[in-house]
Amino acid sequence: MPDVSEPLLRPIGRVSSALVDPATAPKQGDEGAPDAWLEFVPEVADGLRDLAAGDRVLLLTWLDRADRATLVVHPRDDLTRPPTGVFATRSADRPNPIGLHLVDIVAVEGLRVLVRNLEALDATPILDVKPVLGPER
Amino acid sequence: MPDVSEPLLRPIGRVSSALVDPATAPKQGDEGAPDAWLEFVPEVADGLRDLAAGDRVLLLTWLDRADRATLVVHPRDDLTRPPTGVFATRSADRPNPIGLHLVDIVAVEGLRVLVRNLEALDATPILDVKPVLGPER
Repeated sequence: MPDVSEPLLRPIGRVSSALVDPATAPKQGDEGAPDAWLEFVPEVADGLRDLAAGDRVLLLTWLDRADRATLVVHPRDDLTRPPTGVFATRSADRPNPIGLHLVDIVAVEGLRVLVRNLEALDATPILDVKPVLGPER
Repeated sequence: MPDVSEPLLRPIGRVSSALVDPATAPKQGDEGAPDAWLEFVPEVADGLRDLAAGDRVLLLTWLDRADRATLVVHPRDDLTRPPTGVFATRSADRPNPIGLHLVDIVAVEGLRVLVRNLEALDATPILDVKPVLGPER
């Protein structure tokens, strides 16, 4: 195994959401999560220019309140479910807690993008936005 | 906009692949990409224990040969296509070049996992593995 370097992420924005309490936040966007604003830093404005209302995108976030030492969890915090290796779960607790959220864009206002049903907590750093792959890639 | 911190990624392994040349590598896994081994570091062994042949997973990688200053590209390096903001493309060049790969697991041998059709280059750092969300999450 070669040496593994430690790449530095540069957050490109923050989530602005009514969700502030991890204990009560929905675990997935389709479980009653609210709409939320994505607030981007001015330095990435050019990268945003082709995002539009109606687009379905993958939002990547940094789950900064996760426990990076966790390798085994009860899925969905359900103690009746057997302990499971984190790479077979969507637990936020994992060595690199990158959140992956499938969301629909509702509105774009300059550096602010409104999306539907986002379970990420308020102030979560944003790492990336990618289109969902289709025939056009 | 609050201050944005700079989270440090800790690669959990490396891709071992016959693909070494970015110029000729397929752009997506379903475009003729080869099978490849994922080689994990011993520290994350417990997290791997529920991965099995037949599972379809999302592999997250760090595209360490990407250009992080790029914000606008011609999609798929096709100069006949108009310049497009990177967040509306799957270009590897972007501020946080996290690769997202949908792959099927073919075999698991301890810390090594064989996957089908992976377009990532040899030695690409691995960041995370997540199950595809279904009824069971």
